[in-house]
Amino acid sequence: MTEVKEEKTLAEEMGEKIKEISIAEFFEKNKHLLGYENPTKSLLTVVKEFFDNSLDACLEARILPTIKVSIKEVKENVYRIVVEDNGPGLPPDKIPIAFGKFLVGSKFMRLRQNIGTQGIGAKGAILYAQLTTGKPAKITTYFKGKKYEIELSIDVIRNEPKVISRKEEPIEKNLHGLKVEVFVEGRYIEKGQSIPTYLKYIWITNPFTKIVYDGPNSSFTLERVVNELPKEPKEIKPHPYGVELGRLKRMVHMTKSRNVVGFLTSEFSRIGRDSALSICKIAKVDQEKKPSELTDEEIERLHKAMQSVKLMSPPTDCLSALKEEYLAESLKKEFEPEFVVAVVRKPAVYRGYPFQVQVGLAYGGKIQEITQEAILLRFANHTPLLYNQSDCAITRAVEEVDWGNYRLPRNSKGLPPAPLVILVDLISVWIPYKSEGKQAIAEYPEIIKEVKLALQEAGRKLSIYLHKKFVREHLAMRANIFEAYSEVFSEFVSDLTGKPKEYIKNKLIEIIRRGEYKDGEEKKMKEEVIEVK
Amino acid sequence: MTEVKEEKTLAEEMGEKIKEISIAEFFEKNKHLLGYENPTKSLLTVVKEFFDNSLDACLEARILPTIKVSIKEVKENVYRIVVEDNGPGLPPDKIPIAFGKFLVGSKFMRLRQNIGTQGIGAKGAILYAQLTTGKPAKITTYFKGKKYEIELSIDVIRNEPKVISRKEEPIEKNLHGLKVEVFVEGRYIEKGQSIPTYLKYIWITNPFTKIVYDGPNSSFTLERVVNELPKEPKEIKPHPYGVELGRLKRMVHMTKSRNVVGFLTSEFSRIGRDSALSICKIAKVDQEKKPSELTDEEIERLHKAMQSVKLMSPPTDCLSALKEEYLAESLKKEFEPEFVVAVVRKPAVYRGYPFQVQVGLAYGGKIQEITQEAILLRFANHTPLLYNQSDCAITRAVEEVDWGNYRLPRNSKGLPPAPLVILVDLISVWIPYKSEGKQAIAEYPEIIKEVKLALQEAGRKLSIYLHKKFVREHLAMRANIFEAYSEVFSEFVSDLTGKPKEYIKNKLIEIIRRGEYKDGEEKKMKEEVIEVK
Repeated sequence: MTEVKEEKTLAEEMGEKIKEISIAEFFEKNKHLLGYENPTKSLLTVVKEFFDNSLDACLEARILPTIKVSIKEVKENVYRIVVEDNGPGLPPDKIPIAFGKFLVGSKFMRLRQNIGTQGIGAKGAILYAQLTTGKPAKITTYFKGKKYEIELSIDVIRNEPKVISRKEEPIEKNLHGLKVEVFVEGRYIEKGQSIPTYLKYIWITNPFTKIVYDGPNSSFTLERVVNELPKEPKEIKPHPYGVELGRLKRMVHMTKSRNVVGFLTSEFSRIGRDSALSICKIAKVDQEKKPSELTDEEIERLHKAMQSVKLMSPPTDCLSALKEEYLAESLKKEFEPEFVVAVVRKPAVYRGYPFQVQVGLAYGGKIQEITQEAILLRFANHTPLLYNQSDCAITRAVEEVDWGNYRLPRNSKGLPPAPLVILVDLISVWIPYKSEGKQAIAEYPEIIKEVKLALQEAGRKLSIYLHKKFVREHLAMRANIFEAYSEVFSEFVSDLTGKPKEYIKNKLIEIIRRGEYKDGEEKKMKEEVIEVK
Repeated sequence: MTEVKEEKTLAEEMGEKIKEISIAEFFEKNKHLLGYENPTKSLLTVVKEFFDNSLDACLEARILPTIKVSIKEVKENVYRIVVEDNGPGLPPDKIPIAFGKFLVGSKFMRLRQNIGTQGIGAKGAILYAQLTTGKPAKITTYFKGKKYEIELSIDVIRNEPKVISRKEEPIEKNLHGLKVEVFVEGRYIEKGQSIPTYLKYIWITNPFTKIVYDGPNSSFTLERVVNELPKEPKEIKPHPYGVELGRLKRMVHMTKSRNVVGFLTSEFSRIGRDSALSICKIAKVDQEKKPSELTDEEIERLHKAMQSVKLMSPPTDCLSALKEEYLAESLKKEFEPEFVVAVVRKPAVYRGYPFQVQVGLAYGGKIQEITQEAILLRFANHTPLLYNQSDCAITRAVEEVDWGNYRLPRNSKGLPPAPLVILVDLISVWIPYKSEGKQAIAEYPEIIKEVKLALQEAGRKLSIYLHKKFVREHLAMRANIFEAYSEVFSEFVSDLTGKPKEYIKNKLIEIIRRGEYKDGEEKKMKEEVIEVK
């Protein structure tokens, strides 16, 4: 509160500089938030966004997905990317806002397991395309016997779609699907954090998907491993434990329910009439009161009461895990390991959101040819996360597991030094990504705990296998040594008994090969394995 | 393109689910993106957002900042936070949008060194307050002889401010400043990633600021270390090397210039008439053409030509580094080390954006009582980054420096194990934060390189000090040993020369203490130091 002369001018000057920008403008300048921070990652992000959308659409429409990805270099560092699906498509009049306006989407407030949720991804890819090559996106959809081709770009200043051309032509009636074509600047790589890697990994956790890839240097087709879709995840209502006061206030004013009890039972999961009545009682709120007439203090008391009442965990049919055998099967196909195990945990809850962890371990075999350090594959809602590994709840959980407990080389810091693939997939109605680029998961303790439990369960199974392998190898070695001596030994026994040497030798070898000592030893060693915590 | 029956219904069903959400709704659900992921961090983030705004406003108005922060627990885990500054304030009619609407701000497209830029921070804090306690924010501003008190909340569905009350009363004419008051849920901690730590650190890099803190458990005042503001950073125009094609297209259509040459020279930095003419020539574009009449192909050729022409780096008066001695002084005051060094690098450029690195090292002294592991203090535009250390360009650079080269214990991974404070401050017209929460910097190679160079320069100075210290200690030790023998030695010399023993002994001690051997050795050892790369 000091005194100066020019204060008024200053305040007014400050005021005059204030202006609004659009969310499109914000993301254009902050494109790295969406995953566009270098040419390699940018190319991958574009493919990922369209591919994820296609997969989501097919799953939502309960169609076995066939998704084609084509990438061609049209000039140095400029690529034409086409992603095409056999999903339900979209009505042509919805295409412009669905692809040309940020924060428009179908999944934002729905509590259901989806890949996309933000209404940002596809727009980001189109924005990046127009920013780097100046070219509009071309969206093709099949709708009611017609094929529509719409060229559009994003009016960045207004965050509105700008339709550049629209063509339609009659087609065979029952065709369906959606195709997106963009031109982007980027750098293509074949291995590592690359588009082929992304497609192979997403196919592991979506084994009901057929993927046809036509890249600049390679082409491949990944056939379905299974021919059925996973069970359909249901949409759920918010659980009272996860609702903040501010949101409750808004819900109170927007509800169509006529009284508080009706509001509580219809807008939340796991509140029945009895719970609703006891919430009202604890909160000292009239159960018949019209929600919109509740005072701020009453809403506050309701909020507190909701947290204090004992309620069931949210329903978990909003989640759709893979079957363990499918996950194991996919890992086998991709990595050809000598041993594979998959574990799917029961659903758990953080902040009122249900979530579930599934993990797979693939050990040895062909993996030995690729790596002597464990490889971690992170997934969220069955989608691979290829970047920001060091800053992710999944990584933290994997590093906190003491792999030495499972007959693997102990990991001091980081991943265990072993020919091992560790797959972790977190599914939830709401994944807490660390940024809009969706490459890492925030470190909620509940999530880290569940991932660790799943890994430990899988680890124990791997440990049993490794132990059996050790016993087998040990016995084989002993048998080999014994066989080597069998010549001398049978001569000696033959001399002693008068029986022919050949007869004795054959008998001996038979005994050795049957592994007479095995059972007793194995039993003992198995007990050891179980002792491992 | 397979056939199904219900295709049309599906597409239409999908279409019907599409809806728009507001940016406020997006951030409400994704509040962890803004730094609201746990109660401790959330409380800090609220203070940080308002404090940074206050500091920015004072700096912009060229007022020596005095900022008061008050935090009081009003009930369990609910705090009243007040941040008050002596800045220019804002006209009352601008308050609602400045504090109640996301993506409104004064700094978004300006290329100038500011703390805030996004038009998100303060709104996020107010949103978090209303979400957790349901209470509106109260903003007080002094404007033209009146004090205005405005209570407001954010209409989340529409991303619009909702003014709840507005009071005004006459005050003494020349008062100025702004005060924000909110009630938030959170957890208060005194040490570590805490509010007091934040304030102490921001004061180190803003030593011209007076901070008055009144916390739940402690109060303190941090007085100005210097009484002058750093030079005012200038706003610059975009540099041609950093402009993407899509943005150039938009600029072409929005410019007021009448021809291409005028457009190029007036909208960009470092394009004079000669460069503009040669860009036109290379691009085969008529220099007199009206910008809005350029074809897409012509703009593309211009874009390419702009990148190929040799231009000066962008001007760097948009950056305002601290003076090295101020930085060193602040470090000394805060940590009381035995040695301190500060290095301010020359500005460099990434993607057309100028940036500059300043570092400080404080070694030993009182630091020895706090830690035996180096502490890293990260800053961006003079603001501390307290979270996400492991995932930041600054951390990466610090870890890549081989500290063993500077007479410190060698760091195998991570920070060197030494009683050392490493301060790194990155200033730029555009800091590439990894998320809206602004706690980590994206790993651009240019940035990592500059940070390393700065640290190496400081490291060399530390190394010289450590060497001197070593020599000093070494000589002192030798002198001590010599002194211990001086009794016997002087007896012997006394016998030999017939001079009194006391006389010889005093002479001897005099020689030892003068450190006769020192000069020669020091010189030799200094040479060694310089050899260290």
